[in-house]
Amino acid sequence: MAAPVLFSTIEVTRQVFYREALSYAIVNLKPIVPGHVLVIPTRVVPRLADLSGPELSSLITSVQTVGKAIEKAYGGDALTVACQDGKAAGQSIPHVHFHILPRKCKGDFFSKRMDDVYPALEKSEASLPKHFPQSGSTLDNHYAPLRVDADENRQPRTLEEMEKEATWLTTFFSRHERNE
Amino acid sequence: MAAPVLFSTIEVTRQVFYREALSYAIVNLKPIVPGHVLVIPTRVVPRLADLSGPELSSLITSVQTVGKAIEKAYGGDALTVACQDGKAAGQSIPHVHFHILPRKCKGDFFSKRMDDVYPALEKSEASLPKHFPQSGSTLDNHYAPLRVDADENRQPRTLEEMEKEATWLTTFFSRHERNE
Repeated sequence: MAAPVLFSTIEVTRQVFYREALSYAIVNLKPIVPGHVLVIPTRVVPRLADLSGPELSSLITSVQTVGKAIEKAYGGDALTVACQDGKAAGQSIPHVHFHILPRKCKGDFFSKRMDDVYPALEKSEASLPKHFPQSGSTLDNHYAPLRVDADENRQPRTLEEMEKEATWLTTFFSRHERNE
Repeated sequence: MAAPVLFSTIEVTRQVFYREALSYAIVNLKPIVPGHVLVIPTRVVPRLADLSGPELSSLITSVQTVGKAIEKAYGGDALTVACQDGKAAGQSIPHVHFHILPRKCKGDFFSKRMDDVYPALEKSEASLPKHFPQSGSTLDNHYAPLRVDADENRQPRTLEEMEKEATWLTTFFSRHERNE
């Protein structure tokens, strides 16, 4: 059995759908859109500046590889790729991560209110509940870091829902790679 | 004399302040904040998925290196790093590029209206003038791609202003590297 995967101090093993030696990708508790995932270096460091050359290469290769699969899996036409590199940029979890969001030309959230994705992205990191524990990872607080304002309509998903998506993505992912 | 640097079909040689073999960085016509720069792969391709392994590695290494220098040069506390990967994600120039923006904890644009940076970022790419030429690069239309809505307060800078900033950054940049 593989070692538990940590996102900062949070165990996210069951959300993982892609792994390389130096980076991995997980599904989200409250995705802004379907297919909103995170790509993360395996080593827990807060800033891009902290990563070594091999870690950077693995991270960007994962962004490319996961991005292609996610875009195909969710029928996207493009991708928003963003890293809030430091607290003043909206980062809440002090562990480097790239957001990847599939985008569509029309007919969805984005085309109607294109700008919404960015405020939502920043809010989803900036608005942690005040009681959020800075360490520990019981089942209840595993996903608190990704919670957004109470006035948001998005509901947090269950661990089972996320695991189901991660499993589906893993399958799609392998299929996608074989077809290339 | 080095070969002209192209951002899609636009010559941006005088805006360049950093070059590697497979990527480069330029200052902006209408930066959302001081220090808002672009990091670009040298080869003209529209999507992240089009880049080779060495191109990806060069790109992310440049993002890291330029990000560190920019954050220091402009007294930032963090960085927003974003790639609008495809038209449906707000990309207007069909040539891969990462935006890098220094962010501050307080006292600036960001802390007052933190969400503004993303809509501004998307607008700056999405709101091209309808007459924007798809090819050619006379002096007048060099920078049209980065123009924003007429109701924006930001004024386009002159080529001389941008060149001055690029020259300053080049100097700072070398100094920054020597000090590390």
